[in-house]
Amino acid sequence: MAMNEDPIVDPDILDLGLAEPGRRRIEWVCQSMPVLQAVRKSFIKAQPLAGFRVLAGFLLTPETANLLITLRDGGAQISVAIPAGSLKPADLLASLSKDYGISHLPAPAALAGEPQWVLEQGGRLLADPIPGLLGATLEWGSPKNYPFPVISIDQALTTRLFDHRYGVGQSVLDGILRCTNLFLSGITVVIAGYRWCGRGIATRARGMGASVVVTEIDPTRALEALMDGNRVMSMAEAAAIGDLFITATGNKNVIGRDHFERLKSGAILVNVGHSPAEIDLGALDRIASSHRTIRESVEEYVLRDGRRIQVLAEGQPINAATGQPTAVRDITMAMHALSLEHLTKNAAEMPPCIHPVPEEIDRQVARLKLDALGLKIDRLTPEQEVYLATGPEAN
Amino acid sequence: MAMNEDPIVDPDILDLGLAEPGRRRIEWVCQSMPVLQAVRKSFIKAQPLAGFRVLAGFLLTPETANLLITLRDGGAQISVAIPAGSLKPADLLASLSKDYGISHLPAPAALAGEPQWVLEQGGRLLADPIPGLLGATLEWGSPKNYPFPVISIDQALTTRLFDHRYGVGQSVLDGILRCTNLFLSGITVVIAGYRWCGRGIATRARGMGASVVVTEIDPTRALEALMDGNRVMSMAEAAAIGDLFITATGNKNVIGRDHFERLKSGAILVNVGHSPAEIDLGALDRIASSHRTIRESVEEYVLRDGRRIQVLAEGQPINAATGQPTAVRDITMAMHALSLEHLTKNAAEMPPCIHPVPEEIDRQVARLKLDALGLKIDRLTPEQEVYLATGPEAN
Amino acid sequence: MAMNEDPIVDPDILDLGLAEPGRRRIEWVCQSMPVLQAVRKSFIKAQPLAGFRVLAGFLLTPETANLLITLRDGGAQISVAIPAGSLKPADLLASLSKDYGISHLPAPAALAGEPQWVLEQGGRLLADPIPGLLGATLEWGSPKNYPFPVISIDQALTTRLFDHRYGVGQSVLDGILRCTNLFLSGITVVIAGYRWCGRGIATRARGMGASVVVTEIDPTRALEALMDGNRVMSMAEAAAIGDLFITATGNKNVIGRDHFERLKSGAILVNVGHSPAEIDLGALDRIASSHRTIRESVEEYVLRDGRRIQVLAEGQPINAATGQPTAVRDITMAMHALSLEHLTKNAAEMPPCIHPVPEEIDRQVARLKLDALGLKIDRLTPEQEVYLATGPEAN
Amino acid sequence: MAMNEDPIVDPDILDLGLAEPGRRRIEWVCQSMPVLQAVRKSFIKAQPLAGFRVLAGFLLTPETANLLITLRDGGAQISVAIPAGSLKPADLLASLSKDYGISHLPAPAALAGEPQWVLEQGGRLLADPIPGLLGATLEWGSPKNYPFPVISIDQALTTRLFDHRYGVGQSVLDGILRCTNLFLSGITVVIAGYRWCGRGIATRARGMGASVVVTEIDPTRALEALMDGNRVMSMAEAAAIGDLFITATGNKNVIGRDHFERLKSGAILVNVGHSPAEIDLGALDRIASSHRTIRESVEEYVLRDGRRIQVLAEGQPINAATGQPTAVRDITMAMHALSLEHLTKNAAEMPPCIHPVPEEIDRQVARLKLDALGLKIDRLTPEQEVYLATGPEAN
Repeated sequence: MAMNEDPIVDPDILDLGLAEPGRRRIEWVCQSMPVLQAVRKSFIKAQPLAGFRVLAGFLLTPETANLLITLRDGGAQISVAIPAGSLKPADLLASLSKDYGISHLPAPAALAGEPQWVLEQGGRLLADPIPGLLGATLEWGSPKNYPFPVISIDQALTTRLFDHRYGVGQSVLDGILRCTNLFLSGITVVIAGYRWCGRGIATRARGMGASVVVTEIDPTRALEALMDGNRVMSMAEAAAIGDLFITATGNKNVIGRDHFERLKSGAILVNVGHSPAEIDLGALDRIASSHRTIRESVEEYVLRDGRRIQVLAEGQPINAATGQPTAVRDITMAMHALSLEHLTKNAAEMPPCIHPVPEEIDRQVARLKLDALGLKIDRLTPEQEVYLATGPEAN
Repeated sequence: MAMNEDPIVDPDILDLGLAEPGRRRIEWVCQSMPVLQAVRKSFIKAQPLAGFRVLAGFLLTPETANLLITLRDGGAQISVAIPAGSLKPADLLASLSKDYGISHLPAPAALAGEPQWVLEQGGRLLADPIPGLLGATLEWGSPKNYPFPVISIDQALTTRLFDHRYGVGQSVLDGILRCTNLFLSGITVVIAGYRWCGRGIATRARGMGASVVVTEIDPTRALEALMDGNRVMSMAEAAAIGDLFITATGNKNVIGRDHFERLKSGAILVNVGHSPAEIDLGALDRIASSHRTIRESVEEYVLRDGRRIQVLAEGQPINAATGQPTAVRDITMAMHALSLEHLTKNAAEMPPCIHPVPEEIDRQVARLKLDALGLKIDRLTPEQEVYLATGPEAN
Repeated sequence: MAMNEDPIVDPDILDLGLAEPGRRRIEWVCQSMPVLQAVRKSFIKAQPLAGFRVLAGFLLTPETANLLITLRDGGAQISVAIPAGSLKPADLLASLSKDYGISHLPAPAALAGEPQWVLEQGGRLLADPIPGLLGATLEWGSPKNYPFPVISIDQALTTRLFDHRYGVGQSVLDGILRCTNLFLSGITVVIAGYRWCGRGIATRARGMGASVVVTEIDPTRALEALMDGNRVMSMAEAAAIGDLFITATGNKNVIGRDHFERLKSGAILVNVGHSPAEIDLGALDRIASSHRTIRESVEEYVLRDGRRIQVLAEGQPINAATGQPTAVRDITMAMHALSLEHLTKNAAEMPPCIHPVPEEIDRQVARLKLDALGLKIDRLTPEQEVYLATGPEAN
Repeated sequence: MAMNEDPIVDPDILDLGLAEPGRRRIEWVCQSMPVLQAVRKSFIKAQPLAGFRVLAGFLLTPETANLLITLRDGGAQISVAIPAGSLKPADLLASLSKDYGISHLPAPAALAGEPQWVLEQGGRLLADPIPGLLGATLEWGSPKNYPFPVISIDQALTTRLFDHRYGVGQSVLDGILRCTNLFLSGITVVIAGYRWCGRGIATRARGMGASVVVTEIDPTRALEALMDGNRVMSMAEAAAIGDLFITATGNKNVIGRDHFERLKSGAILVNVGHSPAEIDLGALDRIASSHRTIRESVEEYVLRDGRRIQVLAEGQPINAATGQPTAVRDITMAMHALSLEHLTKNAAEMPPCIHPVPEEIDRQVARLKLDALGLKIDRLTPEQEVYLATGPEAN
């Protein structure tokens, strides 16, 4: 069993005997999180969260566990409320409790503890009123009106580069290969949507030898896809030639009834977008004579004319963040930690709305990552700063 | 002689006998400007510029000539003032005058004509007060305070993709090959700056088999460069390993004294940035024992220790827009034309400052380009528009 | 559990109750083996193996099972002898026995059956004298002197392209990602050896955003690597900068004591070559203060100076053929089948030595693959055939 | 004017006043020929050609001039016979004569000098009997029966990599851009033939952002093209979608009547193959209503239905070797020199037929190139040599 997979899950009661393997998983992953470790070091020294009550509404993974530990080491009284319906890895829970004094609570109990700050994935905790809450960080959440300042982690440029473009580019292909044993060289991959995720997947699919077709509704993004070396066409045209379809639009019915009619037998459909409705499975079901699960996460629909269509993960978004490489999650975890520190210092002056990650934090995380890689970049000389400020004409 | 090069230039007096070759050049290039031609067709029908006095402060190329003709066909009284010091291609001037009734005037005379609208490259005309001016479009200009609305063509997304990223990626390498007969496979290309131009050049240099090193002062852009498959380091480190250096930063002394000391003999230095001072030629001169022009646009400096360094175009930015493929300039010319149309309808309501190209024009140009390529993209269904507006939860 | 993984292995006795899941695995994989299926169709009709006793010394996978069935359908009396020490997937064995009448025998019993033809992976069966043997096909075997003709599957051009270059390019990276959760964008991958495998891995690693360094002992291959966009240096230099090292040389101690001394902490070492000795693990052990298994297939060595080095699969070649995508194995399985057919017709005239796959079979397999993909290529016109035969001067 | 272009050509009589610019051109190019310079150094010391009469039947370029000088410095009595119909650059001739004592002779006079060795491009000199000739090197020649040993430079692996694959990949695209001002990003490039040249062009065209289609008659090469990320189809299909067509097959009528009928207006046709008949211009002429030269090397055919087709260089192979980067020609010139040295030592024992470049010369040139680039590669240890010789089993 791989070390960052879950040995025993959904425990009824905490089994502290599992703390040891849990701690090993946490420490193993820690080695690949140099950015968060740099933040942790500074937190240990500066104690920016001293005395604050912090609640984290996170999926529990070795990566989020390391964030919790970082917050604790920064002085926070930290607890975690795993979203209902998500896995509760017994070994991580045991180690967090025994080794780090961090407890898991059901949401109502957690909220009863009157947290001052919330860090969250998805936004379910924040959907309810939380008396006394001073601010929050939010990942994977849609903007809403909140009566306190919320920093949206998704909008940091470094997060987008790592988590949304390059991370997804690797992890989506990786996830598909693990389900299907597909050979990418020479096949036609159709990608619906050419935003951060679509670009990342297209780049990596071309890099693996596939011929990539992009569909878009935006003409500028369509042109960009074209000039990047992809082909561009409508989904109606693409449907007839694709071997693998990946939707990344956030919209519904991106592949629908009319497209199903044109698919080649053996076509594989995957959704990586925010919307669970990108592939119109209802319509697919109606034109199918049967369907069955042929491998874990692979459903095969046999159409009335004999064609076989495979749908991964029942059309739900694959590659939840747990599928991302640790080096990618490292960036995002550091963004949470530094954004929380920023809130503790500035929330009083911040209007009660969604804020992007402050630019200086974005750059700080990028700089920490470069440091971790041992890469040096240039710094402006005083002379250059003057030149940039005044322009060529003044010089 | 190639048809889009200049047969006879800088005439003292107009020689209408050259109109025929000029017209052929204009028409030849016109075939590769489908987007501008689509605009022209709509202008001929709608006459949006009817009765307006328009002055174009443009370098005169077959591409800009086609823009002038489009404006004339849209009803404008159009004249052109070629910037002082720029080429005055006799054949194009002759054809514009004889075949299209468009005359070239020195700037003072042109301004005396009391233009209502100005289209400009560089911004010298706009630097002076122009009584009665209602608005302008500006390419290659730095933001200033103007007492009328100015649309900045450089900031359109489609312009950036075509002109700044992919166009430059091709034309800079092309320009360097014409000067130097360099073989790109396997050499190390150092690119200073990873904005639109730097990204485009890096992508194409890798595509030609070079190993690319990027230097940056911004950590996020440095990380992006790294994840795109480039190496990242400081210029001090890069100086010692590069075969070809391309600066694209807009700053001064990006390659300076300390870097010259570390260059390999045979290194080639090129500037494509906005600043004429990116390579510190003064410092290079001081450590050189001699220099001489060895080919057109190639200056060889022999350093005291015997190393030979080549500088292209005396460190001035190569690849002025005339070096861009016509298909790239087509986009930008269409942006000027449609932005002028927009100004004529809306300038009265627009505050007197720099405006980006309106988003709908950006998308219109992209859509015209896709049409010209015969490419279809998807359109939102009414159902999808509702879904996007209301989000997954409401659906 | 994935369908082409083994549910129950190493059975003592055959459990026919497992035939059903076994058959489903065989049929599932069959859908991705169109080339072998085309061969099977022709075999069913022509019965080229009618009456022959055939022994297959193969690892048992769903792909090799499909080859066995194809041979059976071509008329052969076929049995399989799984190499000692290899897995014996109970479900596949059950289905082969119950559904297809193909039995598994220990090598001695299999040889007692006096096979006329052997198909083999590795060459252990062929190492012993087999009375009455008329010929064999051999995969993954080193050339030896045999008293009968042997067709070497490894040397077919199509096999090399699929199995050795592009297949390996995907499956090696895939295998590494499953062990390590590594993020490839921006890391430095050092590949020792630039033959078929090395080229394939380098291409795909660059395609995933890595910066690739190649080490070689052959100057021509080194230059090819360079011009393909990789960096080239000695292993001594590469050792200090690599994040991931992949050996593909067939030699020993390609990474040895002196290199270990220079590795960065966290470096990962992987062997994909034919030699089990490419990484000098003995030397690594001697300079390590400890080592432990941290995940399946991942051994971490802690050096005396604190650096941590990870070795995958104990330095044994990863990516045995079972790791290849089915579409890749399809080609190789078809090569076995058609080479056997060729032997049955021509072995009497073939000298007793190693033969390459006949060129016409190589092209036939390639053509079947193109047909399966629905791709058309051109054919020479009679006029063109004359031209090619006589040259430009005669025309 | 660029320094490696010809200032004055086809002189009636030698004008020694042009020796100075000629010498500068020769020396300038010499800086980019480190491999030939290394050979020259060894020749100066060892004088391997001392006393031999050598005739070079070469196009005269700065690169071939450097080869002539190298042979002279190796002790040869060297003269050059420029092929009839080729340019006679007056400056190079003047410098060769005045500065290096190398004279140009018409072929009959040159042969009257009873050369012992011939180095040739194309093979016209060798087509006639040359009494006393001991051997020859041949570039761009088709195999014939000769009564003396001939080393075919074209077949060296390093020559193929540099001159046929990567060199052509750059120089063909470069040549097309200089004629046409085409923008490669996003266009569809159709390449007929996927041998060395086709592969090189396809790789670089994809690298410049084009979408590449390959047509082939060989199924294995077609599959290779596909897995490299190109699309594969018949020319009949490709004709309808291509923007730029490049033939590299060596065959005739690769693009013919039926294909012309399907071309898009604006399509550009280029031949880079050995055959001058790859594009059936006769057929194109018959379906055209007119054609005219619109730029140097660009002929536009207007078809009866109004479509416009452009043909470059009248369908003749573009990119004669003079278009190759100097770094590429450096390799080939060194091959000539070292092959001649080899002949002087071994011709007596070599059968009178075509020989490939000896493998050790091929590797020597590659090694000199690596040295020139400052790149180190590994060498086998004695232990590794034993291992390779005896195999894993003995170790």
